[in-house]
Amino acid sequence: MTQNRRELANAIRFLSMDAVEAAKSGHPGAPMGMADIAEVLWNDFLRHNPGDPTWFNRDRFVLSNGHGSMLLYSLLHLSGYDLPIEELKNFRQLHSRTAGHPEYGHTPGVETTTGPLGQGFANAVGMALAERVLAQRFNRPEHEVIDHNTYVFLGDGCLMEGISHEVASLAGTWKLGKLIAFWDDNRISIDGDVQGWFTDDTAARFEAYGWRVIRGVDGHDPEAVAAAIRAAQDDVGAPTLICCRTTIGFGAPNKQGSESTHGAPLGKDEIAAAREHLGWAHAPFEVPEEVYAGWRAGGAGTARQAQWEQALDKYADQYPAEAAELRRRMAGSLPEDFQEQAQAYIERLQAEGPTVASRKASQMALDAFGPLLPELIGGSADLAHSNLTLWKGSTSVTDVEARNANYIHYGVREFGMSAISNGVALHGGFVPYDATFLVFSDYSRNALRMSALIPTHTIHVFTHDSIGLGEDGPTHQPVEHLASLRHIPNNEVWRPCDAVESAVAWKVAIERRDGPSCLVFSRQNLAHQARGAEQLQAITRGGYVLSDPEGGAFDVILIATGSEVALATQAVGRLADAGIKARVVSMPSAEVFDRQDAGWRESVLPSSCRARVAIEAGVTDYWRKYVGLDGRVVGIDSFGASAPAAALFEHFGITVDAVVDAARSLA
Amino acid sequence: MTQNRRELANAIRFLSMDAVEAAKSGHPGAPMGMADIAEVLWNDFLRHNPGDPTWFNRDRFVLSNGHGSMLLYSLLHLSGYDLPIEELKNFRQLHSRTAGHPEYGHTPGVETTTGPLGQGFANAVGMALAERVLAQRFNRPEHEVIDHNTYVFLGDGCLMEGISHEVASLAGTWKLGKLIAFWDDNRISIDGDVQGWFTDDTAARFEAYGWRVIRGVDGHDPEAVAAAIRAAQDDVGAPTLICCRTTIGFGAPNKQGSESTHGAPLGKDEIAAAREHLGWAHAPFEVPEEVYAGWRAGGAGTARQAQWEQALDKYADQYPAEAAELRRRMAGSLPEDFQEQAQAYIERLQAEGPTVASRKASQMALDAFGPLLPELIGGSADLAHSNLTLWKGSTSVTDVEARNANYIHYGVREFGMSAISNGVALHGGFVPYDATFLVFSDYSRNALRMSALIPTHTIHVFTHDSIGLGEDGPTHQPVEHLASLRHIPNNEVWRPCDAVESAVAWKVAIERRDGPSCLVFSRQNLAHQARGAEQLQAITRGGYVLSDPEGGAFDVILIATGSEVALATQAVGRLADAGIKARVVSMPSAEVFDRQDAGWRESVLPSSCRARVAIEAGVTDYWRKYVGLDGRVVGIDSFGASAPAAALFEHFGITVDAVVDAARSLA
Repeated sequence: MTQNRRELANAIRFLSMDAVEAAKSGHPGAPMGMADIAEVLWNDFLRHNPGDPTWFNRDRFVLSNGHGSMLLYSLLHLSGYDLPIEELKNFRQLHSRTAGHPEYGHTPGVETTTGPLGQGFANAVGMALAERVLAQRFNRPEHEVIDHNTYVFLGDGCLMEGISHEVASLAGTWKLGKLIAFWDDNRISIDGDVQGWFTDDTAARFEAYGWRVIRGVDGHDPEAVAAAIRAAQDDVGAPTLICCRTTIGFGAPNKQGSESTHGAPLGKDEIAAAREHLGWAHAPFEVPEEVYAGWRAGGAGTARQAQWEQALDKYADQYPAEAAELRRRMAGSLPEDFQEQAQAYIERLQAEGPTVASRKASQMALDAFGPLLPELIGGSADLAHSNLTLWKGSTSVTDVEARNANYIHYGVREFGMSAISNGVALHGGFVPYDATFLVFSDYSRNALRMSALIPTHTIHVFTHDSIGLGEDGPTHQPVEHLASLRHIPNNEVWRPCDAVESAVAWKVAIERRDGPSCLVFSRQNLAHQARGAEQLQAITRGGYVLSDPEGGAFDVILIATGSEVALATQAVGRLADAGIKARVVSMPSAEVFDRQDAGWRESVLPSSCRARVAIEAGVTDYWRKYVGLDGRVVGIDSFGASAPAAALFEHFGITVDAVVDAARSLA
Repeated sequence: MTQNRRELANAIRFLSMDAVEAAKSGHPGAPMGMADIAEVLWNDFLRHNPGDPTWFNRDRFVLSNGHGSMLLYSLLHLSGYDLPIEELKNFRQLHSRTAGHPEYGHTPGVETTTGPLGQGFANAVGMALAERVLAQRFNRPEHEVIDHNTYVFLGDGCLMEGISHEVASLAGTWKLGKLIAFWDDNRISIDGDVQGWFTDDTAARFEAYGWRVIRGVDGHDPEAVAAAIRAAQDDVGAPTLICCRTTIGFGAPNKQGSESTHGAPLGKDEIAAAREHLGWAHAPFEVPEEVYAGWRAGGAGTARQAQWEQALDKYADQYPAEAAELRRRMAGSLPEDFQEQAQAYIERLQAEGPTVASRKASQMALDAFGPLLPELIGGSADLAHSNLTLWKGSTSVTDVEARNANYIHYGVREFGMSAISNGVALHGGFVPYDATFLVFSDYSRNALRMSALIPTHTIHVFTHDSIGLGEDGPTHQPVEHLASLRHIPNNEVWRPCDAVESAVAWKVAIERRDGPSCLVFSRQNLAHQARGAEQLQAITRGGYVLSDPEGGAFDVILIATGSEVALATQAVGRLADAGIKARVVSMPSAEVFDRQDAGWRESVLPSSCRARVAIEAGVTDYWRKYVGLDGRVVGIDSFGASAPAAALFEHFGITVDAVVDAARSLA
């Protein structure tokens, strides 16, 4: 060791202190506390290539306590990623690549967007699962083409969050032996010493999940940290938690060990004192060349990646089909024939016209598309037979021998499920889906938001989409959820009206690369709707004219989604009897419709017609964007009730009669 | 024991089987599996009064696995609550008192609404905390006027949910020794044998939280169950988990032990076989008189309550002030002078006109109202110094000697926090508040929904209410949250524009008895707004005219909330220069405004004026309900970014310029 390790770690400390000071905001405490651990991990163990952050077989590193972002930015900068010192000087400023919390896609080398506590941990579990399942599928004797670790840093906050329970439990059950977590046990959270609110025996807790736990590691002793990592790597029978005792704000002589270092600049005087205390004689943002050299010596990433690429070529010689599939999946492209085959299925469905619940139509779509897509992986939060997420090709990921493992029994863990999905998507090689009742999107809500923000290509299936759920009652009946999900930027929500729209929604969600889709399905049967070829094509527009009166002219527009489209189509005849001509617009995805060009939107909802009725078994306010102040909305603005579905639609007035009355009041 | 205990339990089993069969839906497995445990608990231990479900000092019983509702309905019916057999026959039908999941306020004796898994457990932790803190405040030597247990039944699903981690951890830290939980360890969840997705050592996990764990209890052996409960009651140093090994669907000879009993009727044949197997020769919904007698013998509730009331009278003799306060708090009424004093504070504020962040104004309101309200209890999810929830009278509940304990350090546990708040409110004697950043309302979202559905008188404080949060970036900046919270039925969201509106919001939230309030506050300073006496009064209307042009006539209405009200008022002069007269409407609570009479709403937003601009740093679609298709909305429909707040408002175009431009385009 030509370089003092503490010196290498101190580079992180001062970059963090100085960047937070320059930004006048940020979190120096965690980077300073975890600097020694990070230095050992990154310099001695992490197999990555700073020159190519997208190298597929790299080890994954996740900073779940993302507020310590300067730790990660320092690591990326020091180890040679494309993150110049100017970016660190612009920490937390508009248009810099050093946002307050690490953001995926924004900064090279950041593996996921972290900040909402606990979710980075969940993402890491998803990455480790992806690695395991990919290795099962593709590795062959003497060809370990998929072989990397996932490392994750956890703060006390991550461990207090409920999601840590959900995903640690699954990681234990799944025996994800290449997942190695580091607990930054500094006994401080924002409110102060955690003794008053966090007294868990975390080590014992993780052992209860089936983890291997390495207790009592001095997080400021590089040898101890290295020994723990070696021990973790030696035993891949279970995930490992390394409990690192650290001092928050290590090196700030007057503030270390206190919550005052957590979330605010240390101040000029304390930084000066730290320079003295740690013997760091360099100006802010100045790192001596020998320190840089010490960091980059740990690199050799390009050679490492080249070696892997050679190994992949050899694998391709022996297993050409597998290699072709792996390369396609690493690139994230769909099978060449997917588009065509999926379209053929959709056309067949339109011709056959089945009347089924859209959750059943969803399962039919899985059965149709699943065999084409070995990258499809997913499951349900203990509702497989209600969400209908199991399909004919499903094989559980707990079968560690199976080459085609693709089904995840998540147990009753909605939030962990969707955050793990995000991690699987971020890892690459998969298109993940997950499922629960629509009302329980509340439980996973911030993971859904993170899907859209990161963004990840994840598909969230939600069944039992309204009071149509029936007898389980108001706790299980979504009312405000459709509107609330649509409000998440970059989220696409589909609520199909029949089996055909359901299949189209799945196809669009699978083909969408730049964000998540929420597919919302009914418990109850939905009638098939007639469509011409153009209409069939128009479903992908999100909103389209399902039917017009003969001659084309109309007095009123009925806009509906999902199960309520049938109410609209049934109202048409009744209205015609009353001399009112009605257009029916099916609007399976309002967000997708809103993204269409103005011409399309005007052709569907001509501004000349203000007599508009929206019909959806959910809160009515959302629909004012289409019906304005002059229109009417048939919906429900209270909680539901426990009764058979038909009785509830009648009770809450979501009926053909109500649609007819609303339309008559306008026409 | 004159009555065979199994026979008593079998009454639960057959009522459950038969009711589910009649409803053609429901969950017989859990009631059949937990019948023996419930029988012992209710007949031998539970201190309640079926004649008065509101008796304050009753033991609380929570069925967290609420899908097993027929267990609770059977218990209530058999033990003499006002729940006649006809109601059980109408299980899950419209207007029956036997909803699919237990609903508070709907069925006498139901302590909370359960169904969304894990939250009943959290409610129970809240109830046990409430009992402890009340006892600390009011009990005196030889006067244990507050002294009851909280019992909670948990299924595997509750224990898989992340919230179980959050609240079990807190219950352990708080040493809630009178909380006794029963784990229905039947090794089955909806998807089947839990071995594939739930392999935790739950007993060890709870020990890691500091619980006392009683392992290996045969849940079908009444003696073993009774012994466990006695042991739990004997040691009040820690909460107790009793691990009960049970057979799901116990008594159904061909289906017991299988997930097929979980969530569907057993079918006529299997029920007949169960009658044979368990020796139950009675027709559906027929319970022999001697079985009823066996259940009601366990009652004696009226005498128990009378005895307590006598004890309370004696206490009142010796401690009249304490007794008066206790009686007031049990009744849930506010101190007589609260209204007047609070109003005086508000008027003083209007006169003083401080310019502070509304989160600071919230803390000022706590300092003003807190001393008047010993029932105020609350805290923050590890953001006390950001949410500004600590006030001058705060004393931690971890101080078990303190008479005035009223502050809860929740740690980083948003969901557990709000569900515990709900439990505290349900227990009675308190007005609970909780707090986190607005963006993390996502984490607690279903607990917020449950506040509104149950409903509970809880106050949810959310600070850092927009991109005004600044440098922490998009993961911490709410965009869709205001709209999403407003969509929850019966929820009242307040986003005040200055210190005065902040104080009014607190006052209204404290005075509201029939549901929750979300109080949404800024990180940044907000300018004081001028108001006359009438306007000051009008704040409680949710929306009111903050300013009109001289003469009263106006060309355009600017509607704004929170920090954006100042943009509207600043735009007025600029518009006047351009010859456009603008009215400014402050809309701190749209839901409260919507509940006003039509006359008020018309006076604020006259239908003759369609030139309307809404301004809010959140998603724009929500505001179409007020501005329609003709108006404009200044807001943000993307995620935010990491930068200082001022730069972000500029970057995302939420500025006076934008308001002026929008208004000019309409006028």
